[in-house]
Amino acid sequence: MQDDNCTFSMKRRDLLRMIGMSGGAAVMYQAMSSLGFAAESTFKGQPKLQGAPKNTSVLILGAGIAGMVAAYELRQAGYKVQVLEYNHRPGGRNWSLRGGDRFTELGGFSQHCQFDEGFYLNPGPWRLPYHHHGILSYCKKLGVPLEPFVQVNHNAYVHSANAFGGKPQRYRAINADYRGHVAELLAKSTQQGKLDDAVNKQDQEMLLESLRDWGALDKNLAYSSGIASSNRRGFDKDPGGGLSARPIPSKPVALDELLGSRLWSNLSASEIYEFQTSLFQPVGGMGRIGEAFGRALDGVIRYGAKVTAIQQDEHGVTVSYEDADKPGSTQKVHGDWCICTIPLSVLSQIPMNVSAAMTEAISAVPYAASVKVGLQFKRRFWEEDEHIYGGITYTDLPIATIGYPSTGFHSSGKGVLLGAYIWGLHAFEFTAMTPEQRVQKALEYGSQIHPQYAREFETGVAVGWHRSPFTMGCFGLWSEEARAKHYDNLCQIDGRIALAGEHASYLPAWQEGAVTSALDVIERIHQRAVAEARA
Amino acid sequence: MQDDNCTFSMKRRDLLRMIGMSGGAAVMYQAMSSLGFAAESTFKGQPKLQGAPKNTSVLILGAGIAGMVAAYELRQAGYKVQVLEYNHRPGGRNWSLRGGDRFTELGGFSQHCQFDEGFYLNPGPWRLPYHHHGILSYCKKLGVPLEPFVQVNHNAYVHSANAFGGKPQRYRAINADYRGHVAELLAKSTQQGKLDDAVNKQDQEMLLESLRDWGALDKNLAYSSGIASSNRRGFDKDPGGGLSARPIPSKPVALDELLGSRLWSNLSASEIYEFQTSLFQPVGGMGRIGEAFGRALDGVIRYGAKVTAIQQDEHGVTVSYEDADKPGSTQKVHGDWCICTIPLSVLSQIPMNVSAAMTEAISAVPYAASVKVGLQFKRRFWEEDEHIYGGITYTDLPIATIGYPSTGFHSSGKGVLLGAYIWGLHAFEFTAMTPEQRVQKALEYGSQIHPQYAREFETGVAVGWHRSPFTMGCFGLWSEEARAKHYDNLCQIDGRIALAGEHASYLPAWQEGAVTSALDVIERIHQRAVAEARA
Repeated sequence: MQDDNCTFSMKRRDLLRMIGMSGGAAVMYQAMSSLGFAAESTFKGQPKLQGAPKNTSVLILGAGIAGMVAAYELRQAGYKVQVLEYNHRPGGRNWSLRGGDRFTELGGFSQHCQFDEGFYLNPGPWRLPYHHHGILSYCKKLGVPLEPFVQVNHNAYVHSANAFGGKPQRYRAINADYRGHVAELLAKSTQQGKLDDAVNKQDQEMLLESLRDWGALDKNLAYSSGIASSNRRGFDKDPGGGLSARPIPSKPVALDELLGSRLWSNLSASEIYEFQTSLFQPVGGMGRIGEAFGRALDGVIRYGAKVTAIQQDEHGVTVSYEDADKPGSTQKVHGDWCICTIPLSVLSQIPMNVSAAMTEAISAVPYAASVKVGLQFKRRFWEEDEHIYGGITYTDLPIATIGYPSTGFHSSGKGVLLGAYIWGLHAFEFTAMTPEQRVQKALEYGSQIHPQYAREFETGVAVGWHRSPFTMGCFGLWSEEARAKHYDNLCQIDGRIALAGEHASYLPAWQEGAVTSALDVIERIHQRAVAEARA
Repeated sequence: MQDDNCTFSMKRRDLLRMIGMSGGAAVMYQAMSSLGFAAESTFKGQPKLQGAPKNTSVLILGAGIAGMVAAYELRQAGYKVQVLEYNHRPGGRNWSLRGGDRFTELGGFSQHCQFDEGFYLNPGPWRLPYHHHGILSYCKKLGVPLEPFVQVNHNAYVHSANAFGGKPQRYRAINADYRGHVAELLAKSTQQGKLDDAVNKQDQEMLLESLRDWGALDKNLAYSSGIASSNRRGFDKDPGGGLSARPIPSKPVALDELLGSRLWSNLSASEIYEFQTSLFQPVGGMGRIGEAFGRALDGVIRYGAKVTAIQQDEHGVTVSYEDADKPGSTQKVHGDWCICTIPLSVLSQIPMNVSAAMTEAISAVPYAASVKVGLQFKRRFWEEDEHIYGGITYTDLPIATIGYPSTGFHSSGKGVLLGAYIWGLHAFEFTAMTPEQRVQKALEYGSQIHPQYAREFETGVAVGWHRSPFTMGCFGLWSEEARAKHYDNLCQIDGRIALAGEHASYLPAWQEGAVTSALDVIERIHQRAVAEARA
């Protein structure tokens, strides 16, 4: 199981080494995959909590996805539910920043989003894999319409400042060329008898036939300039109609140049389980899910409530909180049980009388740094000039990612890009800047890929998650050692307190981790409550 | 150039051999790719036809995409334009069959589509690649809204009746396993020094690093059961939240079984240029484009007009036609020039005084057989039960393809599948059946993949293109020899007559071929007309 565990929580020094080594998006995706970003949900339908004891109350801390799933289901099962939420809105990291919205960071930086109506940035999650059945089921239940999210765009770019003279390459060309070269090398090895020990003769024949098709090889089993390869990577002159319509093939990148460019490191992202088709996004922004939950839980959530202490005894849990805008005026609220979804980064600073094991677990999980920048432009030049409709450009510049909107395709007028999605060391650098500087830097770097930036830019917003007062980081970054030692202790019900959230899951950072964690914990709380009532 | 040409028109006997050999969708996709389905458009913006001579008339035969593009642009340039169209609707093969529509085939089979409101089958084209700039530009110009078309769905199936006991396999698993095995074989060859002649030592190091990432290999460079491979192919038990959330990896298919299954032959479809992301479809059905053109050309198109003769002299072109519903009442119409977009399969039967070279070209292109079946079901079981949202299942059963709708995702209620998309010999077999039998057969075969068919089926329609009275086939199937000998002769202006359509392009079957062919021909007609007016 060592090997398995490794993928869901890699050694921290390995992670940092990787990030330090090249710092690009590709590496971060690889790291995220290794950290367990890539998995289908265990969700098997809504829980059936039957026979809830009368007048049993559950206090829920945090109106993010985990807290609201717990509140929604427990209330439905007959529990008395109250939710305390720090922000003045539901959703937590499920959040869309829209024109008119204000956001103040730790340290005081305040932003007033100037996007035109209809445009948004999702500072947190921005996509829903088809196999995240839990969060999708709540979209259906709450009437949140979905639209496709384009993850892989063959016509978007892969870019390295140090390769091809800094000129962005089309994903389709690098993808086709790597595959073609691999197919050719293996086909030639096979023909030369070098696979005789590994593959029997009959399978070798089939292997050659398959490599020719799969790798777009020519009749000599070479990956060469011609129609076969251009039908994958694109043409120099495209075929058309009428006279003078004959196409001119393009020329593949040579293997040594391709390997040296390291652009191949962007190719596996499209193959990772949650980046596979089909993905979705809520129409109007990811925040629509949190907003819908908030409406469904109208009257149940107390907003602007900053939790200052969590104390349990054998009868229940008392939570102290103060008005987030008027510190000092402490109030208390009581529940028979408490489900706490406050991020560990914040929770570790709140007095709470749980076991030493849970306390240690809470302190064992550092939070990942991440920054997102949204940029509004006067026109959708990526579509109009470059024929990029949705999807992602990967670069080894600090901005790491340019995300093109998966909505309003082919329309005239303005658009908002995800101008940067930064992880690791660069995220700390960007977080240290003022929001204006972050936007400026995103524009400078992005101009190396899209020179239209300078002329078309209108306004931007930038969220550095380590300055977010309600999370103080992006998500719980489990190390392999920490998960082995602390994960079960974190998830156990401790007296009358239990934790939930993406940090209490094997799907870190994903909303599905929050949903499945909440469903797991409410079933266990329910069992305890029923047993207690019977006793 | 032999090699290049080869891809756009393969030897007919090779094509038939391929189809005969396995008959599956995979092979047909390979064949279609080879035939030139895979290419970006040469469209470079709308033409600028300046200085059209006054009172010059152009007669256009056929109100499909080619004919309507020609009519739209020539009218805009100042020409007097008239279009004759056999059907009682615009669009030609750009067509959506909706509830209430009637369609009568050659031979008399008549169908009355019973789909519920909002559902449709596109019997002809059903997707718009992002690089087909010509057809996309008309969507924008005519205000036809687009939505994403999902081509590749990692969670759809690849299926062979003769492999895995007939059990459908998820695309993601076969895709990951083929890639993983290829990466492992090449990595091991590299490690064993077998690539020393082909790749220098430094590149070998980089190749190994890239293969590990790209192929999801483990630390021993093996493609093995574990988190790395399951993060591509899927898990036996998926990770989740809370306790008992630890995932259980799945087990890859062994190389010999994978090769023997031939399911690898479905993997290249997703890599072909026009099946790459992003693709689109018009909201409401492909027919929305033809309908929009029809509205834009209101009053210009005479519907229900069956052309019976095309005769030119040095002054102009006279076209005889009869009412398609009342044969015998011949009428005549005259134009200074004529652009004929009638499919060659039909045109070859119409008297027309053009050169022997063009006449031979018209007769040199057989038309591909194809059948599409649309099936309406009571519920979207492919989404609800199997988590397949859009995309395609490939099978070597005669139905070849099951296409899932790329609209209404995640909604409750009914849905319409593309239940069969058949090419080659099986298409002739299906065309020979009654429409009811075709639907029945599609249900029988499809039930092997989706056992829900029997319980959920409501109604279906089936279009066999060889029985379509306005095309008598699906598209012009150029052989390599025919293209070399006849293509230019087909596209030359012959006196005052010129041909246009997908058959006059290097993009056979694609609407973009029709658009670029029409734009090419109107520029040449315009030059002639201007020169004539000056002379």
